[in-house]
Amino acid sequence: MNKINEYLIKNNYDYFLLPNTDEFFGEYLHPNDQKIKFICGFTGSNATIIFGKESNYFFTDGRYILQAQQQLDNSQYHIIDIAKKNILQWLTENVKEHQSLAIDPKLISKNFCKKISTNIEKIIYLTNNPIDQIYNNTQQIVRNYSKSYELPKAISGASFQEKINMILPKISADAMLITSPLNLNWLLNIRGSDLPNTPLFLCRGILFKDGKLTLFANQSINNSQVEVLPLAKFYEYFSQNIDKISSLQLDFNQCNLATTLVLDKLKIDYTHLDDPIDGIKTIKNFAEINGAKNAHLHDGVAVVKFLYWLENSWQNNIEIDEISAQEKLLSFRKNNDHFIENSFETISAFAENGAIIHYKSQSDTNKKFNKNSLYLIDSGGQYFGKNFMGTTDITRTLAIGSPTHDMIENYTLVLKGHINLARVKFPKGSTGSQLDALARVHLWNCQKDYQHGTGHGVGSFLSVHEGPCGISRYNNHALAKGMILSNEPGFYLENHYGIRLENLMVVDEFDDNFMCFETLSLVPFEPNLIDFRMITYPEQKWLANYHLDIINKISDYLNCQEKEWFVKKYIFL
Amino acid sequence: MNKINEYLIKNNYDYFLLPNTDEFFGEYLHPNDQKIKFICGFTGSNATIIFGKESNYFFTDGRYILQAQQQLDNSQYHIIDIAKKNILQWLTENVKEHQSLAIDPKLISKNFCKKISTNIEKIIYLTNNPIDQIYNNTQQIVRNYSKSYELPKAISGASFQEKINMILPKISADAMLITSPLNLNWLLNIRGSDLPNTPLFLCRGILFKDGKLTLFANQSINNSQVEVLPLAKFYEYFSQNIDKISSLQLDFNQCNLATTLVLDKLKIDYTHLDDPIDGIKTIKNFAEINGAKNAHLHDGVAVVKFLYWLENSWQNNIEIDEISAQEKLLSFRKNNDHFIENSFETISAFAENGAIIHYKSQSDTNKKFNKNSLYLIDSGGQYFGKNFMGTTDITRTLAIGSPTHDMIENYTLVLKGHINLARVKFPKGSTGSQLDALARVHLWNCQKDYQHGTGHGVGSFLSVHEGPCGISRYNNHALAKGMILSNEPGFYLENHYGIRLENLMVVDEFDDNFMCFETLSLVPFEPNLIDFRMITYPEQKWLANYHLDIINKISDYLNCQEKEWFVKKYIFL
Repeated sequence: MNKINEYLIKNNYDYFLLPNTDEFFGEYLHPNDQKIKFICGFTGSNATIIFGKESNYFFTDGRYILQAQQQLDNSQYHIIDIAKKNILQWLTENVKEHQSLAIDPKLISKNFCKKISTNIEKIIYLTNNPIDQIYNNTQQIVRNYSKSYELPKAISGASFQEKINMILPKISADAMLITSPLNLNWLLNIRGSDLPNTPLFLCRGILFKDGKLTLFANQSINNSQVEVLPLAKFYEYFSQNIDKISSLQLDFNQCNLATTLVLDKLKIDYTHLDDPIDGIKTIKNFAEINGAKNAHLHDGVAVVKFLYWLENSWQNNIEIDEISAQEKLLSFRKNNDHFIENSFETISAFAENGAIIHYKSQSDTNKKFNKNSLYLIDSGGQYFGKNFMGTTDITRTLAIGSPTHDMIENYTLVLKGHINLARVKFPKGSTGSQLDALARVHLWNCQKDYQHGTGHGVGSFLSVHEGPCGISRYNNHALAKGMILSNEPGFYLENHYGIRLENLMVVDEFDDNFMCFETLSLVPFEPNLIDFRMITYPEQKWLANYHLDIINKISDYLNCQEKEWFVKKYIFL
Repeated sequence: MNKINEYLIKNNYDYFLLPNTDEFFGEYLHPNDQKIKFICGFTGSNATIIFGKESNYFFTDGRYILQAQQQLDNSQYHIIDIAKKNILQWLTENVKEHQSLAIDPKLISKNFCKKISTNIEKIIYLTNNPIDQIYNNTQQIVRNYSKSYELPKAISGASFQEKINMILPKISADAMLITSPLNLNWLLNIRGSDLPNTPLFLCRGILFKDGKLTLFANQSINNSQVEVLPLAKFYEYFSQNIDKISSLQLDFNQCNLATTLVLDKLKIDYTHLDDPIDGIKTIKNFAEINGAKNAHLHDGVAVVKFLYWLENSWQNNIEIDEISAQEKLLSFRKNNDHFIENSFETISAFAENGAIIHYKSQSDTNKKFNKNSLYLIDSGGQYFGKNFMGTTDITRTLAIGSPTHDMIENYTLVLKGHINLARVKFPKGSTGSQLDALARVHLWNCQKDYQHGTGHGVGSFLSVHEGPCGISRYNNHALAKGMILSNEPGFYLENHYGIRLENLMVVDEFDDNFMCFETLSLVPFEPNLIDFRMITYPEQKWLANYHLDIINKISDYLNCQEKEWFVKKYIFL
C-alpha cells in the first residue's frame, strides 16, 4: 500500500486517475511535472495510472510493457496494455455506480472528461494534486523560467500581425483561447527553453477578435498588441474580466478541464473549435523552408562526419557502444554554433536493441558493437542561427561488420519503400492515408510490415512531432505545399535487429495538378546493405541523384579524407 | 411550360422534387419506373429534377452533362452539375421560408428526407406521383412479374436457415425491415427477372426475431418459414399487425419515407440499423466463389473468341463498328447455355468515345473502326447453370491498327497499376482506401490519373455493383476473405481515346497475417500495347503466369485456329 492508496481511503475516493502530462498536454515534460516518474520510477512517455484504495493499475502501450515490468514495483501495480484494454473501457467495467473517481482537472482535457462523464457519475475534481501534496515536492527543483528570444521576420517568414490576420477570420466569438504553448510561440515569433528538446517558453493566451492578445507567461514580451500577465494568474483572469468575454472559442482536445470549470462557474458561453493555428502553422512559408534546408545542411554534415568516424573506428578495432556512439554524434552536432539541442532523445540501438522501436540506451542495456549486426541511430537537432532556424530528424541503419543476406534483403525492401514515397507524384488533395501503402508495398509483398506510421509532421524550430499532417493509415488531412513530413519505413526482427530509414521531406507543387516531395535530409544510404539486383532503374537513378546532391551541398564542410571516402563509397558505389 | 408546372400552379406547390429511382432504390429500373426518361427523354442513370412553377432544374454529374444538353429541351430545363451545386445546396439557397416542396415519399429515403427537413419547413408528402397522374401512364407497358426460381444449396452455398442464423443476432427489436430486394433474394436463395441486368424478383420483407419472415412479393415461395403477401399490401400491413410489431429496425438509407410515415402514424418505434445483410452477403462462401470461377471460365471463352474474331475481321478489312462489335460479343456469350443476360449495359467505345467513361453507343454516336486507334469494351454477364451461378465484369482495351507511342506508354502504365494491385499482399484489416494508390502510382509518377474508383464489389448472380466493399480513396470497409472486387484502373485522353483494364478478383488469405487477391477473369492483355522496357521482372512473371493460366483453363473450348493464335500471340509474345 502506498501513500496514494492511504489518501484515497482517508478521503473515501474509490479511484484517482493520473495521466503522464502537465497542464499544456505537450510531448515533453519539465522534470517537476514528471509525476509518474516521481511516484513509480517509470521513464517512458505513454503512461496513465489509476490508483484504487487497494490496487493500482498502470496503462501503457506495447512499446513500454517490458520497460514498465522492469521499472515498476510489480506488487503495487497491475500493468495493462492499452491495446488490449484502454482506460475508458477499464473505467466503464470497473467503476461501479456508487463509486467515485477523483481527477486533477488541470491534467485532463475537456474532451476526455466528456468521454468519462458518460459512464461515471461521481467525478471528484481535486483542487490540489495528491502527488504534489503527499510527497510535498521533496524532489522538486527550483524552476527558472527561461528568458525568451524573438525571431526576426527573415527567419519566421511572417510577422505577428500577418499571422494574426490569418487567424482572425476563424474567430466568431468574443475571443479564442490558445492553450498550446507551441501555437503561441509560433504566433508571437518567440522561442524559449522551458522544456527539453523543444525550444519554447510556456504560456497561454486569449486572442480577442480585435486582434489584441492577452498572454499569460512568466516574462515580458516586446509587443504593443500583447498584454502580459503572470502564468499563475490565468485561472482567475476570467472572473476579473467577465465584462470583456461573454463568448469564447476553445479546442476541447487541447484545453484542460480546470479552465472550462472556471468558465462554467462564470456562465461564460464557450464552444469547441479545432485550434486554427494547427492547420496554418503546418504550412511552412518560404523562410521556414529555407531555414529547414539550412538546418539539414548543418545536420547532414554532422551525421556524415559521424558515419565516417564510425566506419573508421570499427575498422581500427576501436571499442564503440551505443552510448559512446550517440555521444560522438552529439559532439559532431555541437561543433556547429547553430545547434541548440537534440530535438528528441536519441535512439542508438545495436543489434537486437534496434528491434525495440522506442529504445533508449541506458547503462544497463548499453550494447558494445562486438559482432556482425546492424546499428540503428535515430536522432535530430534544433538549429537556430542568425538567418535561419529548423528542426531535423533522421534515422540511418548501418552494417557493423558483415551483414547477412537477410539483412541486405530487408534493408533493400525498406529502402525501396522509402524511395517509392520520396519520388511519388500525387494529385492535389491526396492524404497521407492514401500514400502510406507506397512505403509498405515491397515489404508487404514479402509478408513483412512495420507497426508504426510512415511519417509525421515536423515543426519549424518547434516540436519534432507536429500535427495535423502525417502519413499513416489513419491520417486523412490533405497534404499541401509547405508541409514538412518524415518518411520513415522500417522493419524489425525481434531479438535480432531493426531497420529504419528516415528522411524529412517538404511537400511541393509539381505542376497544376500534382504535388511531390523534396527530400531535405542530406545523409547517404548504406551501399553495403543494398541488393542492387532488387533495385529498378528509376530507384537507382533517384539514389544516385540523391547522393550526388548531398556531396555537392556538404563537400565544403568535409575534410579531405572524408570527401574521398564519401565519393568512393557513395558516388562510385 | 409543361404539365408539371401547371400542376404545381394549380395545387400551389412551389417545387416538386423527382429523383430517378423506384421505391427500392436499386441500380436498374423497370421501364415503367423510368419517370425521368418518360418526362424529358434523358436516358442516363444519375438524374434528379426539381420542377418549379415556371422553371425546372435538372441535376446530374459530369459524366452526363453533355448527354443531358443533347437529350433535354433546353428551354424547359436548367442543367446543373451536382459537383458544382448539389441538390441539398440548391434547395437551401432557393426554397424560401414560406415556400413548399412536394415530394413522392415512395421515392425519397428516410435519410434524404432528414437532410432536407433541416432546411425546408413546408414539405408536402404526395399520395400520388404527378408524373403518373398527369400522363395517365400512357406509355406504361403491362408489367408481368417474373416467375422466380430457387437456388439449390450446392449453388448458394448456404441454406435460408443458415443465413437467417447469421442475421438474427443483429436484431434487437421485434423485427427488422428488409427493403432491399437484392438482400432478400440472397437471403431466400431465390432469383427472378423483374429487372434488366440483375436477376432478381422485386420484394420487401419483415424478418421477425423468431426467424419468421413475412415477404411482400407478387409470387408464392416454397418455404414454410415465409408468409407471402402481395407486394401492394406492404404499406397497409403495419396497421393490420400492430400487435405483432412494437419496435422495428430499418436502414434509413435504404428505406423510403412512405414506410416511415406509416410507422410514425402508428407510433411504431423504429431505429436505424445498417442492413446487416450487406456486410454478410459481401463475403462469398466456397460455392459462390466456385460459381464465380465457373462463370469466369465461360465468360473468358466468349471474350477470347471475340478478341480472335475482332483481330481477324480487322485484318480482313471487314467493316466493324461499336454496335456490331458489342452484338458480336453478346452472340459469343449467348452461345453458352448458362448465359442469362448482360450484367450491365455494354460500353463499346472506339477512339474518342473511349474517353467518355460511361459511354453507351447509340445509332447517332456509333463509330466505325476506320482508323488507327484504341477500342475499349467493358461488359459482363449473368451466368446460371445446374451447379453454379456467377456475375462477370471485364474491360479490355485493344489496338485497332497501329498504336502510337503514347497509347503504348499509357496502356503500359495502366497495366502496371493493374498488376501492382493484382499481385499485392496486404495485412489483414487493410481497406480499399489504403490499396487504391497502388493502382495509380505509375500513372501519378507521369502526372496522370483517372477520375473513378479502382474497384467495386460484385454480387453472386446479383448486382454487378455491390457494396459495402470497394477499392477507392473513400472506402474504409476492411477487405476480407471471400469478397469479390473489380480491379479497373484506366486512363482517358479527352477527344482521343480511353484505356481501362478490368478484371474481377476474389480476396483470399495468404498466411496468418496477410491477404492477397486471386484474379478470376480469364482474358489476356494486349501485347501490342505493352512497352516491355517499362515492365519489371515480377510484373512480367505475373503476366506470363496469367496468360498460361488462361490457356490452361480455356483451351478445351477453343477451336484449333483460336488456340494457335492465342499461344502465338499471348504465350510466345
